[in-house]
Amino acid sequence: MQTLHVIQEFGKMLRNLDAWLDKAGAHAKAKPFDANVLVGARLAPDMYSLDKQVQAACDAAKFAAAYLSGKEAPRHPDTEKTIDELRARLATCLGYLETLKEADFAGADERRVSPPWLHGKWLRGEDYLAQIAVPNFFFHVTTAYAILRHSGVDLGKADYIGALPLRD
Amino acid sequence: MQTLHVIQEFGKMLRNLDAWLDKAGAHAKAKPFDANVLVGARLAPDMYSLDKQVQAACDAAKFAAAYLSGKEAPRHPDTEKTIDELRARLATCLGYLETLKEADFAGADERRVSPPWLHGKWLRGEDYLAQIAVPNFFFHVTTAYAILRHSGVDLGKADYIGALPLRD
Repeated sequence: MQTLHVIQEFGKMLRNLDAWLDKAGAHAKAKPFDANVLVGARLAPDMYSLDKQVQAACDAAKFAAAYLSGKEAPRHPDTEKTIDELRARLATCLGYLETLKEADFAGADERRVSPPWLHGKWLRGEDYLAQIAVPNFFFHVTTAYAILRHSGVDLGKADYIGALPLRD
Repeated sequence: MQTLHVIQEFGKMLRNLDAWLDKAGAHAKAKPFDANVLVGARLAPDMYSLDKQVQAACDAAKFAAAYLSGKEAPRHPDTEKTIDELRARLATCLGYLETLKEADFAGADERRVSPPWLHGKWLRGEDYLAQIAVPNFFFHVTTAYAILRHSGVDLGKADYIGALPLRD
C-alpha cells in the first residue's frame, strides 16, 4: 500500500466519523435529548470519552501524515466541548491531510520516526505506520463508533466502512 | 507498506488479542465468575458478541492473506463456545498466516479481489486492503478489546499495541 493511500483512508474514515456524529445529532433531536451529553460518553470509567476519541483519531492521522512526510505537524489544541466543535476539528484535520501529495511521502518507509514520547528512540517509517499509526488510528475511530452504538445511535457496518471503489 | 508487513501486523494483533483473552480468564478467576460468560458479552443488542468479534477478526486477516496471495482460504467454521476455544481459533488462524511469505504477495496491489459478497464486482488489491481488510480487521479487534474493557478486564493501551521494534 502506498503511504499516501493509507493517509487517504484515514481521511475517508474521518469523513465517515463526521457522518456518524451527524446521525448522533439527529438521534438526539428525535428522542429528544441534548446531543452534547454524548461528548462525555465512554465505555469504561478509565477509557477516553467520545471527545478524546475523536481528538485522538485526528491526531493519529495528523501525526502520521506529518512524521512520514518529514514536516512539522500543525497544532490543534484539544478544546472541543460539543458535537459541532468535534465536527469542526475533523474538518480542520481533513484540511491538513489534503495538503499532502504522493511526492511528500517519497522514502517514507525508511524515514526515521521519533515521536517525543519515545524519548529519543525511533522506528523505521514503515514500522511506525503499520504498528503504531494504523492500529492507533482505527482504535480511536472504532471506539468512537462503539460509544455511539452503545448509546443507541442507529449506525451499521456500511456507515463504518463508507463508499468503496468497486469495479464491474 | 509491504503487503506482507500488513499481514504480519494482523498476526501480531491476533497474538495481542490472545493475551487479552488470557487476562480475561485471570480476571474471571479472581472475581470469581465463569469466564465463558464473556463469550456472549456485547456493547449493543445488535452488535456482535465477543465470540463473533474474534471469529470476524480471524476471518478478516485470513481472507486478506488468501485473496492478496491468490490462494483459496482454509475453512474455519464458527463453532467456538468458550474462551479456550476462541484462543484455539486464534492459533489456527495464526498458523495459516505464517505459511505466507513475501513472494506470495508479488503483484498484490494490482490483483483483482472479488469476495463472494460483492456478487461479481471487484476491487484492486490495494483498495481492498486499505478500504476493507484493514478497517474491518481493526474494527473487530478493537471491539473485542472494548467488550473486555467494558466488562472490567484490566487492559491498557500497551496491551492493545503490543511490542514495538524500537531502535536506539
